Amino acid sequence: NLPQGSLAPHAEQGIDMWALSRLVMARDKALFSGHPVAAVAALDPFTAEEAIRLIEVEYELLPPVMDVLEAMRKEAPLLHPDLYTQEVMGETDETPSNIASVIKYERGNIEAGFAEAEVVMQNTFRTQMVHQGYLEPVAAVAAVDTDGNVTVWTSSQGYFTVKNQLSVLLGIPSNKIRVIPMEIGGGFGGKLWPWVDGICILLSKTTGRPVKIVLSRDEVLRATGPGSPSAITIKMGATRSGALTALEATLIYDAGAFPGSPVSFGCIMGFAPYRFPHFKITGYDVVTNSPRVAAYRAPGGTQIAYAVEQQMDMIAEALHLDPLNFRLKNAAGQGDRLTNEMPLTRVGIKTVLEQSKNHPSYTSRLKGRNRGRGVACGFWRGATNTSSCHISLNADGTLELVLGSVDLTGTRTTMAQIAAEEFGIPIEEVHAVMGDTSTAIPTDVTGGSRITYTMSNAVHRACQDVLSQLKQRATATLKSNPEDIEYASKRFWVRGAPEKSVSLGELTMAAVKGAGPIIGKGSISRMLHAPSFGVHIADVELDKDTGKVKLLNYTVIQDAGLAVNPTQVEGQMQGGSTQGIGWALWEEYIFKNGILQNASLLDYRMPTALDVPFINTQIVEVPATDGRFGIRGAGENSIVAPPAAIANAIYNACGVRLRELPMSPERILWALRKAEENPPPSSRVHI
Amino acid sequence: NLPQGSLAPHAEQGIDMWALSRLVMARDKALFSGHPVAAVAALDPFTAEEAIRLIEVEYELLPPVMDVLEAMRKEAPLLHPDLYTQEVMGETDETPSNIASVIKYERGNIEAGFAEAEVVMQNTFRTQMVHQGYLEPVAAVAAVDTDGNVTVWTSSQGYFTVKNQLSVLLGIPSNKIRVIPMEIGGGFGGKLWPWVDGICILLSKTTGRPVKIVLSRDEVLRATGPGSPSAITIKMGATRSGALTALEATLIYDAGAFPGSPVSFGCIMGFAPYRFPHFKITGYDVVTNSPRVAAYRAPGGTQIAYAVEQQMDMIAEALHLDPLNFRLKNAAGQGDRLTNEMPLTRVGIKTVLEQSKNHPSYTSRLKGRNRGRGVACGFWRGATNTSSCHISLNADGTLELVLGSVDLTGTRTTMAQIAAEEFGIPIEEVHAVMGDTSTAIPTDVTGGSRITYTMSNAVHRACQDVLSQLKQRATATLKSNPEDIEYASKRFWVRGAPEKSVSLGELTMAAVKGAGPIIGKGSISRMLHAPSFGVHIADVELDKDTGKVKLLNYTVIQDAGLAVNPTQVEGQMQGGSTQGIGWALWEEYIFKNGILQNASLLDYRMPTALDVPFINTQIVEVPATDGRFGIRGAGENSIVAPPAAIANAIYNACGVRLRELPMSPERILWALRKAEENPPPSSRVHI
Repeated sequence: NLPQGSLAPHAEQGIDMWALSRLVMARDKALFSGHPVAAVAALDPFTAEEAIRLIEVEYELLPPVMDVLEAMRKEAPLLHPDLYTQEVMGETDETPSNIASVIKYERGNIEAGFAEAEVVMQNTFRTQMVHQGYLEPVAAVAAVDTDGNVTVWTSSQGYFTVKNQLSVLLGIPSNKIRVIPMEIGGGFGGKLWPWVDGICILLSKTTGRPVKIVLSRDEVLRATGPGSPSAITIKMGATRSGALTALEATLIYDAGAFPGSPVSFGCIMGFAPYRFPHFKITGYDVVTNSPRVAAYRAPGGTQIAYAVEQQMDMIAEALHLDPLNFRLKNAAGQGDRLTNEMPLTRVGIKTVLEQSKNHPSYTSRLKGRNRGRGVACGFWRGATNTSSCHISLNADGTLELVLGSVDLTGTRTTMAQIAAEEFGIPIEEVHAVMGDTSTAIPTDVTGGSRITYTMSNAVHRACQDVLSQLKQRATATLKSNPEDIEYASKRFWVRGAPEKSVSLGELTMAAVKGAGPIIGKGSISRMLHAPSFGVHIADVELDKDTGKVKLLNYTVIQDAGLAVNPTQVEGQMQGGSTQGIGWALWEEYIFKNGILQNASLLDYRMPTALDVPFINTQIVEVPATDGRFGIRGAGENSIVAPPAAIANAIYNACGVRLRELPMSPERILWALRKAEENPPPSSRVHI
Repeated sequence: NLPQGSLAPHAEQGIDMWALSRLVMARDKALFSGHPVAAVAALDPFTAEEAIRLIEVEYELLPPVMDVLEAMRKEAPLLHPDLYTQEVMGETDETPSNIASVIKYERGNIEAGFAEAEVVMQNTFRTQMVHQGYLEPVAAVAAVDTDGNVTVWTSSQGYFTVKNQLSVLLGIPSNKIRVIPMEIGGGFGGKLWPWVDGICILLSKTTGRPVKIVLSRDEVLRATGPGSPSAITIKMGATRSGALTALEATLIYDAGAFPGSPVSFGCIMGFAPYRFPHFKITGYDVVTNSPRVAAYRAPGGTQIAYAVEQQMDMIAEALHLDPLNFRLKNAAGQGDRLTNEMPLTRVGIKTVLEQSKNHPSYTSRLKGRNRGRGVACGFWRGATNTSSCHISLNADGTLELVLGSVDLTGTRTTMAQIAAEEFGIPIEEVHAVMGDTSTAIPTDVTGGSRITYTMSNAVHRACQDVLSQLKQRATATLKSNPEDIEYASKRFWVRGAPEKSVSLGELTMAAVKGAGPIIGKGSISRMLHAPSFGVHIADVELDKDTGKVKLLNYTVIQDAGLAVNPTQVEGQMQGGSTQGIGWALWEEYIFKNGILQNASLLDYRMPTALDVPFINTQIVEVPATDGRFGIRGAGENSIVAPPAAIANAIYNACGVRLRELPMSPERILWALRKAEENPPPSSRVHI
């Protein structure tokens, strides 16, 4: 049994520590197939496997509930006998339930809003459980010395977070845990929690040896946190001229075995790009007997965009409006309030929509039978939190830049660019590294599209700190006040008298020769959000005999604020789109009697390079409100729109609307057949 | 061939980079047996050995010169055809020579001084080449990635120094090299240079794989830097009342194959404890065909003390004075100038001598035949340079303390003590770690007894930096100016109003919850020297049939300024003494035709636990002039006095004086036999 530490109300990275403790090792009841119940350490995996076979576990089989709608019914089997529905900012129910919480956002009067509408459209959409599919499986090594000092080497999105979580989970003081980050082979939100690290620590404590755990792909799929399935019903109305009047939405997100789906994100982000004068949104967080969901790139965003962006198209079609013009007409802007009443900062919604309208991928004609084009928008607000770094100077004037974050997206390169720019030196003269929980300055997780945005400002501050110290040092040679000293390209001089100067190299050499080292630090917290917006344009060709969708062209037009490293931004746009395409066409967890049937990458079908065309990108740069550089996060946005864009393209190709993911050949074939059997009154079918 | 980098005049840690480059890999001429000429990388050592055998090297055998006195002769074989004697602060000779440099210190008029003297004594002393004998052999791993970024894992006394040296040696920009320190299995001055690290880098660059080199003990003894052999002639005079009047000394130190023996240290430190109104000191740095010497604990000090401290005893005997009283009468103190004219800071010479006079190890009677007691003093000034650290705070209020130094002597514990004291928290709440060259703040080598002395002040500054930031944060709650806020034991309050306070834990929790992390830094350079002084008392028993010396008792009384961790200080006193006892009785390099004959720890005889009695220690605490705590370095001093103390004890036991190290059974037997054959006029013999 894991010791319990101080599991007082304390949630971190979307999970409370009481739940995390029980998620990584079942207590009393195994809540899903794949829920760990025991751990064994051995000198090699073969011995460990034999030892595991010697552990006899008698399970009392209970009926599983796998579907959110089923789980919400009063008669459904209860996962947690002591879970009561909590209304966010409100009351707690008195009967135990699988509904962990209800969230409500409301503004105006939806009855009045719908009454103004010429067109009202209501539909229900379903999405499935999907996995981030990071390349490297979850893995950790822990070593506990005889004084109880713990060292953990882990592949995680945030080493400070892992340390804090382990400290709370295991009741170990923070200063007794050192977490050293390894290069991470992908995370996408799935590596924010120490799935196996705590188990390594306990096994190391017991054995007196370092202990390594590397999950198999089967274990990764069964036992780590996938993306949340959802059931979403949306009713929207618009006037004849195309002005949205009202929105009513019910979002039901599956949390898996413990509360905490990203439903609240869905309730906010999905409606952010548009102005709804009247709305009423209800979100449900529901537990089921499946793995506890984790963040997955723009968590909760792809689900809601699949619903909203199809609705938008349906209404546009009904009103005979161009889908982009319809969106533009209703586009939100700076100062508009989100559904949770937070004001929007500057965001390039209108600019991106305008550029998309004129983009060749949209203006060109798509020829050929069974082909169709679809568009959809993605909005993501991103996170901010705390980012920190420090800089020290080498004798030769080159820089050591120590980041408190994990490098998931080429952060070392981007931040070296920022520091090089600040110092007016080539990027080759900056050495950017990750520290560890002892040597780096505390920084929150790499996730939420936040690192380039926030860390660039921390780097700026650290550079300014170093430069101000160097100016102080330069006063000895330049006989001037530091505030009168200027700096550019490795030289310091007194303002107005550039003939006498002292070089960066002279000061750094003096530093090692006795003047003392120079270190600058930079940290930033509580920045404003810097939302990102993108338009996706998909061209598809449908094989009506097999239901197979072929992607012909795919284009992403996205606001990055300022693209520090355009290649990396494009990589994010392409990578995120590809994952979204996976959601759209192939990926889903298939359970039978609560047991995952496709726990391998042969049966769980992720897109390969052969399945996806080259993804065209256009970076739009509308500077963010906050921060020195105008940068916005680019990591998450591009996974939001693809399923909706492809659904709209399929509809455009064949007149059949898909409301459930993935839009697999089988599901498409059934939809086509159903449409043939029951031809709708109009030529276009909404199933 | 090693590329040459920018080997412009640039010396670091006692060796110039041109020489270091040639020391780690011979060019043109192999200068000593053991001088590396080629390196081979293979998947395992057996393959590497086979590959080495395939390298055919044709050596043209040149006559070696192994002895400093031989090497100084005009007709001696020249090691370097372009080496000209440099007079320190003076001229360069015009004829090539093995004498690399001459150093001269002079004050007053020695003729007048000797004329005042009642007793004048002149003797010549010899010491041998000895090795530090660190437990862990020299070892390094290097990995060069395809971008040319170099990572080195090395066992060294200074990772920043290694980085700078490698940067210069190989012409690699500093920011392309990251040196990660490993725990070091002993150094004692012998691990200040990258013996194998550069070779690992070049082999890694060539092979595209990480490359590890671990020297065998044979290679360590033949090819790394041992302590310098010496030939020292001293003439000293004193008045009838025991006042020293004059000193004339010639110190000839063997540098090995390249210039740079510690002779200048000998010329300063050896005479520091006493006042000589008139002196003339000449030091010679001489090259021979032996391994280039390196620092060895108080480098140059043991050699000169062997000479000076015997002379002091001889004069005391001639004047019928107690040897400690004689030293006390001539003891130097604060403000007295060293031979190089630097003034002495406060130092406990007189206090230690007074306490030694009253120590039971000195006042007790030593009974038994062939037994004798000897005393000797050791002085060591120590180094200062730069020490740096930084501190960050964990969410639970515990501390991360990152040191830029290697932990050779328990530094992590000592510095955690200092930080705990500053914060008023238990030491268990401080986690002290070593960083690496990227993450830590530049710090000079761990050596020269400097770390506890200087780093404690850096830690103090870092703690004050953190506390002042915390006071700033506390203003929000306490509604007061930071300068009016007081701190003790985890609480902040407004001066005079202790009833309202905010805790350390509240502020650190707020820091991780968005107020932003707190990091404090501390660095210190150019502190005053904090010299250390010790008295050693040795009781021996001589086996006149075998010449074997048995150590009966051994006591060290030493000024540590302030012993932060008395157990560690005692460990230093005992460890240093034991090494000094090794010099005294057993250790020496034995060459035959230039080839080392005893390159193993079976034949090169180091003391074991069975050879040395329990070493009694008494710590004296006379606060150092500089620094917040009064701390002095304790690491080096205790190796200085043992050979002289034991020589004085042997003389006391049998009336025979030894002037050459080691005082092995064979050498003692010959001395006893010679004394019997030529009985001296007095009952006491000075051979």
